[in-house]
Amino acid sequence: MKKEISKLLEVRESVRVVDATLRDGGLVNDFYFTDEFAKALYLTNVKAGVDYMEMGYRADKEQFDENSFGPWKFSSDEYIRKIVGDNNTDLKLAIMADVGRCNYKEDIHPKAESPVDLIRVATYLHQLPGAVQMIEDAYKKGYETTCNIMAISTASMEDIKSALDIVCQTPISCIYIVDSYGSLYPEQTERIADMYYEIASKYGKKVGMHAHDNQKLAFANTIEAVGDNVDFLDATYCSMGRGAGNCAMELLLGFLKNPKYKERYAIKFVEDYMLPLKEQGVVWGYDMQYLTTGLLNQHPRTAIQFTKEGRKDYFAFYQEMLNLD
Amino acid sequence: MKKEISKLLEVRESVRVVDATLRDGGLVNDFYFTDEFAKALYLTNVKAGVDYMEMGYRADKEQFDENSFGPWKFSSDEYIRKIVGDNNTDLKLAIMADVGRCNYKEDIHPKAESPVDLIRVATYLHQLPGAVQMIEDAYKKGYETTCNIMAISTASMEDIKSALDIVCQTPISCIYIVDSYGSLYPEQTERIADMYYEIASKYGKKVGMHAHDNQKLAFANTIEAVGDNVDFLDATYCSMGRGAGNCAMELLLGFLKNPKYKERYAIKFVEDYMLPLKEQGVVWGYDMQYLTTGLLNQHPRTAIQFTKEGRKDYFAFYQEMLNLD
Repeated sequence: MKKEISKLLEVRESVRVVDATLRDGGLVNDFYFTDEFAKALYLTNVKAGVDYMEMGYRADKEQFDENSFGPWKFSSDEYIRKIVGDNNTDLKLAIMADVGRCNYKEDIHPKAESPVDLIRVATYLHQLPGAVQMIEDAYKKGYETTCNIMAISTASMEDIKSALDIVCQTPISCIYIVDSYGSLYPEQTERIADMYYEIASKYGKKVGMHAHDNQKLAFANTIEAVGDNVDFLDATYCSMGRGAGNCAMELLLGFLKNPKYKERYAIKFVEDYMLPLKEQGVVWGYDMQYLTTGLLNQHPRTAIQFTKEGRKDYFAFYQEMLNLD
Repeated sequence: MKKEISKLLEVRESVRVVDATLRDGGLVNDFYFTDEFAKALYLTNVKAGVDYMEMGYRADKEQFDENSFGPWKFSSDEYIRKIVGDNNTDLKLAIMADVGRCNYKEDIHPKAESPVDLIRVATYLHQLPGAVQMIEDAYKKGYETTCNIMAISTASMEDIKSALDIVCQTPISCIYIVDSYGSLYPEQTERIADMYYEIASKYGKKVGMHAHDNQKLAFANTIEAVGDNVDFLDATYCSMGRGAGNCAMELLLGFLKNPKYKERYAIKFVEDYMLPLKEQGVVWGYDMQYLTTGLLNQHPRTAIQFTKEGRKDYFAFYQEMLNLD
């Protein structure tokens, strides 16, 4: 459906911008952000008018060694408070909880005891019953909840529709389109968004978009989704995120016309904090190994390994992925 | 209009991919590509199934000093022959001729004496009568011609429509949408493409897309255009082009499903020739100074200057551009 011209200029009050830098960006540096960085990011989000800040994962410390990860792998209520105090701001705080990797019964405490507002449950299709339990648990504890069904680009539309029907009957406020492999083109995003919206709106739920930049389309897919009734928009500063990274916050805030979003703070944060990370040698962002896995609709793990090994033989990697060598 | 699913998988025979690396990329390094580079690029285009290769500008040597530019600022027939011989391939060769900067009466020789197939006339709106003369001259000399009307994002729709009506009555085969400032979002591209196509198709002309990557949307705008009846698609390897650069050839060939386009040769050329250019210190590509001018719909010259000066104070630049300082 052609987007209305007015949509480029009007304010859609239902839009929510979610900063996922500590969480998806944390996948790049094992969550070793300094407290100064986390604090500056928090203050930037407050000033820039960002709606939610994802503080990281709440991973199970019995499964993951605290000595191998920075604090935002676990994002304890105490550590979050260390950064945000009582968070007397309009910025809401989120954590991500992976099905099977979060001991949610123990580690997610009642909302009244926590600075967190939103629990984002991430699940693969085959884990859906586990996701439903986690959502219900978090809801009962007083949290807003959303759900990310990951890796949908390799699932059948029928399976996705069934999953949406199930998860939209839980108390979630929003169901996310997640382009885990960065393989979607905007015209596919449009079709998927229409399908998600059709089911979600039936249950009074919102739709969200979490994009990856393997084909330099994270921002394009996100603004395509905005035109297709998608309200929750994930972004990270300087696109920091696993592999090719995510939709850049500095691009997204520039696109959105609601005056509460302040582009200049995003640019300032990238200059002051993100580019120094790059200069320190932390590596993420669009590159041809990610184009290759995105194009072939594959998990980016091989491309991430290629990056870690400092390989530059992009052509050989492409041939490997095609199994032509 | 929603793109048909089949369009993602089918072959549209009318699509033409135009490599603009020597020309738009030449704006980055003053056209100082080695002959080895030009030859390898030519052979890559032949193998990758690219339809046209733009060899550079044919600038007037009385206006531009030959000692200040590499060969592709002038792209003489003799120099082109040095690289391509008689070009007994399916790859067609193009040059760009700017209105007012090309002594076309003298410097564009009859087609029978030249290896060039296509003259691409570039014009601003206010130079249109000059463009018409150049198109007619080139057509009479035996060339295919296309026309790029530049900087349309600051022109009124009425002026653009009038210009299209004039230029579509010349013997051009294609009229280009040119996003000179990298300011267009895909939904604007869709509307502009529809408008161009409506007028162009009335005269039996094709529409082309020349995108810039200021907001990381060059590829997104190009594939949006493909779905909107746009046939001529400009791209450059590794996005090399003025300022933020262009649509990346390695992304575009991956998207197009016609088996004549061979992604692997694009990846190999980027690895072997484009990344070494970057390592030598040639600078182009998306960065926040270009985001700033793109967002504000301004000519990128201030951002290019910022880049040349090695400035990193993106926030101050943004404030300067807003005149807030």
